[in-house]
Amino acid sequence: MAKPAVILLSGGLDSTTTAAIARAEGFDLYALSLDYGQRHRHELEAARRVARAMGVRRHVFLAIDLRAFGGSALTGPIEVPKDRSLGQMQAEIPVTYVPARNTIFLALALGYAEVVGAADLFIGINAIDYSGYPDCRPEYVAAFGRLAALATKAGVEGRLSYQIHTPLVAMTKAEIISRGTELGVDFGLTHSCYDPDAAGLSCGRCDACLLRRKGFAEAGLVDPLPYAR
Amino acid sequence: MAKPAVILLSGGLDSTTTAAIARAEGFDLYALSLDYGQRHRHELEAARRVARAMGVRRHVFLAIDLRAFGGSALTGPIEVPKDRSLGQMQAEIPVTYVPARNTIFLALALGYAEVVGAADLFIGINAIDYSGYPDCRPEYVAAFGRLAALATKAGVEGRLSYQIHTPLVAMTKAEIISRGTELGVDFGLTHSCYDPDAAGLSCGRCDACLLRRKGFAEAGLVDPLPYAR
Repeated sequence: MAKPAVILLSGGLDSTTTAAIARAEGFDLYALSLDYGQRHRHELEAARRVARAMGVRRHVFLAIDLRAFGGSALTGPIEVPKDRSLGQMQAEIPVTYVPARNTIFLALALGYAEVVGAADLFIGINAIDYSGYPDCRPEYVAAFGRLAALATKAGVEGRLSYQIHTPLVAMTKAEIISRGTELGVDFGLTHSCYDPDAAGLSCGRCDACLLRRKGFAEAGLVDPLPYAR
Repeated sequence: MAKPAVILLSGGLDSTTTAAIARAEGFDLYALSLDYGQRHRHELEAARRVARAMGVRRHVFLAIDLRAFGGSALTGPIEVPKDRSLGQMQAEIPVTYVPARNTIFLALALGYAEVVGAADLFIGINAIDYSGYPDCRPEYVAAFGRLAALATKAGVEGRLSYQIHTPLVAMTKAEIISRGTELGVDFGLTHSCYDPDAAGLSCGRCDACLLRRKGFAEAGLVDPLPYAR
């Protein structure tokens, strides 16, 4: 039987490609999608579509309303930046940063992994195109791995030796799109936009849309998603 | 103005004493209470009472249904052990262990702390009376502290140098009760039982009740709580 792996699946381009990589490596996928009050909740529908297409073994949706804390453009009444250059995106940690998000998500993935007996966690973080988020860097991931070994019953008892897989961490968006395409990912199922309109249509102008469009252009591929403009 | 501190407040004896210690150290308290599907949700009412009595600045309640994962007597259909000896409690990690719970809670506290600008986190974990939980040990807490420094915008930018305070970690339950009493804690506001009856009355026989009762007896104090038997 295939080994189980927990994968954080947002329904975006990165987590979808990460899921495809995990599946290609022979893992049995246990997906976890978080409804944390993000304004782009349309991505949860994408997560559902992707999980179905990937044949995940089990898909858990957890709701945790991080709007209770505030402090981010993704969860609060702060405007999502539009039409920024790559230089602007990389100059500082953007307002779309959600405090401690990946730590919260990985902690939840760790609890899920312990219950299903998975030693392997996959997260589609990336330190290249979007270098601003502190919790997307390799040194952060290594620190989480050290914590995981001490944090759980299965870890302490030596039954599970956790490994945090970040297959995309050193890839450009174009490389991610190319790799996903090779693995048969249908990017038409995914969602990237931070600020979709009421119908769920991507804005084409937020950082997430701009990086996605730039990635497809550089990969020489056509983005199957429609955009509002 | 007093420095802000985030405190994980379950409404139990330990977190309440921890809050009293933080307040005595001059911190302005930002409490966080988690409704994670625990069968002893009565503790959340205790958290509300305690927070009011302590004059906390802000109290956030977050719901996150860890029953979606299962794997614990506190969140699933596993029976809560009763009438165990201290030796039995310490012999193995009990079924009341919730996978990765303190990692999930500390991750959320970290997000809250970043938003309110708090460098100090308080958690009432204890490695003496109840040595079974892996995520109650000092080495675990140290690993979380190292992670926190790498995980957040405020940490990476050097604005906040996180400190995880565990004032109870080396105290016995009797010492915790004595210290809380010195600080004026009204333990009649708190709740400890893992398996209260429908009216919220403590069972007196689960590990949490037994340790609490033993603690009061050893401290030479009277537990103000009524018990079902």
